[in-house]
Amino acid sequence: MTEEDRFFMGRAIELAEMGVEMSRGGPFGCVVTKDSEIVGEGYNQVTSTNDPTAHAEIIAIREACKTLNSFQLDGCTIYTSCEPCPMCLGAIYWARPEKVFFACSRGDAANIGFDDDFIYEELGKASAEREMVLVELMRDEALEVFKDWSAKPDRVEY
Amino acid sequence: MTEEDRFFMGRAIELAEMGVEMSRGGPFGCVVTKDSEIVGEGYNQVTSTNDPTAHAEIIAIREACKTLNSFQLDGCTIYTSCEPCPMCLGAIYWARPEKVFFACSRGDAANIGFDDDFIYEELGKASAEREMVLVELMRDEALEVFKDWSAKPDRVEY
Repeated sequence: MTEEDRFFMGRAIELAEMGVEMSRGGPFGCVVTKDSEIVGEGYNQVTSTNDPTAHAEIIAIREACKTLNSFQLDGCTIYTSCEPCPMCLGAIYWARPEKVFFACSRGDAANIGFDDDFIYEELGKASAEREMVLVELMRDEALEVFKDWSAKPDRVEY
Repeated sequence: MTEEDRFFMGRAIELAEMGVEMSRGGPFGCVVTKDSEIVGEGYNQVTSTNDPTAHAEIIAIREACKTLNSFQLDGCTIYTSCEPCPMCLGAIYWARPEKVFFACSRGDAANIGFDDDFIYEELGKASAEREMVLVELMRDEALEVFKDWSAKPDRVEY
């Protein structure tokens, strides 16, 4: 890692601190860069906006994609003040940046009361063994939509 | 499951079909209900809005939380036309609904070209073994923000 990486991570940590000071949500910040410039940033806003998906990474990724006018973060680097939770890591895989730097670990997040570690464990289990109740219903009907999608000549894949 | 469950799943599948017909994104729809009423719904809009997080479930959860004025989906049921990807299942854990019904499986999604299964596999691996490059940086500095959070008397936990 370079001085530049430390600079951008410093900004992610600063955003986390700002969010705490302004009581916007949990202590997490994130920056997305491309070609050594910030293209998106965010801090956690779950409790202040009543949005359980408003994690720092999700906000920063959405902003970066808007800036870049793309649903992919090609060639981008993500700096997040904490190891991403499964929701955010999933979002990162869909956005496909080049690299991710994180500061605190998911264990550190668990130590201050966040569910990250629990959710990682749950996602690794088979559906029937999870604490969340997940029930299959009407698969045949929904598969018809998948067929329509596959037959659509102008579909945009991602 | 009841006739009501089939009704709401039918609506989720209908939303998926609408999204395909209008070329908004992938073939996925979702409905959130509380006390037998729809409080949020959505269809995939990744490619039409340049937002990799705009999956049907994320949109429906955000709308439902706005309707209910809460960052939690207490007592809610989610109907999604496909088994949630890790990002969306993570969001579901954070939102904490009572129950989730899904129609197609993640294997069905993989069959029509979506990465869900691959991302589940990646999330189950240790950081160093993943295809995504994840590097720790400045943990000590970021832990200071966690300490500030823990010492904050008016923090709102979630």
